[in-house]
Amino acid sequence: MRTTIIGLGLIGGSMAKDLRKSKFATELIGVDVNEVHAKKAVEIGLVDRIESLNKGIKNTDIIILAIPVDKELQILSEILDGISENTTVIDLGSTKKIIVDSVKDHPKRRNFIPAHPMSGTENSGPNAAIENLFKGKIAILCDQQDSGPQHVALVEKMFQTLGMDIAYMTADEQDHSTAFVSHLPHAAAYSLANAVQSKEDRNIIFDLASGGFRSTVRLAKSSGAMWHPIFQQNRKYVVESMDVYIKHLQEFRDCMKNEDDDKLWDLISNANKIRGILEGEKTYLIKNEEKLVKLYTK
Amino acid sequence: MRTTIIGLGLIGGSMAKDLRKSKFATELIGVDVNEVHAKKAVEIGLVDRIESLNKGIKNTDIIILAIPVDKELQILSEILDGISENTTVIDLGSTKKIIVDSVKDHPKRRNFIPAHPMSGTENSGPNAAIENLFKGKIAILCDQQDSGPQHVALVEKMFQTLGMDIAYMTADEQDHSTAFVSHLPHAAAYSLANAVQSKEDRNIIFDLASGGFRSTVRLAKSSGAMWHPIFQQNRKYVVESMDVYIKHLQEFRDCMKNEDDDKLWDLISNANKIRGILEGEKTYLIKNEEKLVKLYTK
Repeated sequence: MRTTIIGLGLIGGSMAKDLRKSKFATELIGVDVNEVHAKKAVEIGLVDRIESLNKGIKNTDIIILAIPVDKELQILSEILDGISENTTVIDLGSTKKIIVDSVKDHPKRRNFIPAHPMSGTENSGPNAAIENLFKGKIAILCDQQDSGPQHVALVEKMFQTLGMDIAYMTADEQDHSTAFVSHLPHAAAYSLANAVQSKEDRNIIFDLASGGFRSTVRLAKSSGAMWHPIFQQNRKYVVESMDVYIKHLQEFRDCMKNEDDDKLWDLISNANKIRGILEGEKTYLIKNEEKLVKLYTK
Repeated sequence: MRTTIIGLGLIGGSMAKDLRKSKFATELIGVDVNEVHAKKAVEIGLVDRIESLNKGIKNTDIIILAIPVDKELQILSEILDGISENTTVIDLGSTKKIIVDSVKDHPKRRNFIPAHPMSGTENSGPNAAIENLFKGKIAILCDQQDSGPQHVALVEKMFQTLGMDIAYMTADEQDHSTAFVSHLPHAAAYSLANAVQSKEDRNIIFDLASGGFRSTVRLAKSSGAMWHPIFQQNRKYVVESMDVYIKHLQEFRDCMKNEDDDKLWDLISNANKIRGILEGEKTYLIKNEEKLVKLYTK
């Protein structure tokens, strides 16, 4: 299958690797405004050749949009304008509602699948691309009733090829849940990095940083080019999630300040439950008629 | 060398493994009030035998105290009462000032080395013990002028045997820096776990949790038995660190709310600097006459 990937960074590049290896993609075309990235992507074999945006979206079976969400918003409509009836377009951005709304009346709306694979690392660029980045992770498909069933089926097949499981949500639900489990952790890590840097000498941070600090602050390395527009596009829900987080931090802080050690113990015990949740049995939920139904388990 | 380890959990058990392997310890005696842990520690070969506290601290070369910091506070003085002139006692707790103050007038104060190896995982108990847990990490030695130089030298040798580098600080400095780079990340992770659990269904958390969320929230799995007393003993500095963190979160949140996107970009850019700090050259600081002096690099 001819596959066009727009954006040859961590996500697009990693997807290229696995789609080629699995033979889902037999021909890989790359599009990237960054000429250094484009050249590197051909050099390390992520794609077969580079095309301009206009040429890259013609006569192709599937177009994968893997660029920062502000750039997606700028070109998605133009891409839908330029494709044939038989081309599927998928975007992989972390925010969905604004993207979906931007093309809701487009005549080719049913060719478009808004999706979000819950996977990544704190690194970026084609050299950051790795195999099996998506394996065992979940991909969210949004508002599937607004896409053509053939296009949905092809995208489901693609994610399954990558070893992913699929959850179905509305774009609004995905933006809310993702604010809490992904955007908030990034905001928390950025703020932790700033807080520690404001108080401690950089040499002391480095020397004393244990695995715990490194783990908690890891996401603060994530690029602003990717994350700044995510925060802009999901402003309402990220602010909501930060308000909830600050409230919980304040409660923890007040327990300490006021020597309310029983309550402090309860807060720690409740937080410990996250272990059971993260290590629990997978459920792979599908939202169906307002009820959560078990889709399948491995 | 005969080595007694009090507390056969993650830290004591991991230390036992490496000290035996390196032949620093030729005879390993374990002390643990938890009989299940004690039995397991002998069964999996962490120690040669179990003794009572009173017996375990007699006729031994070095005593390693690796129990929660509230328990340390209860028995440290009693341990110093019971040892011979030639026994070195080291504690590995995460808080230092309260521990040091509790024995400041003890006649055997110079046998005691307050230390803190900056290493661990979110797991606990003898089964959590792993080899090389301390390798490449830093050990803090506090108030070394108050310990006998032979005892300091033995402990330095022990940490170097474990592959650790050593930083020298006052107990108060260690409590302040550790509040920011270790205790605050734990409080942040506990509060993040509580915030997300309060708003999202546990199945949704599980299904959507990517590597990023897992990393940021990992420390929230850490046991209350270990962490509750750390927060109690370092209350002042942890509250200070949480106030700084909440201030930075609030600033990030306000930028989002008020659409101050230029400042949001600056906050992300500043946070990104943590990458350079964490990946920088090691400096291994020694506090000497109020100046930071490079001790050695690898």
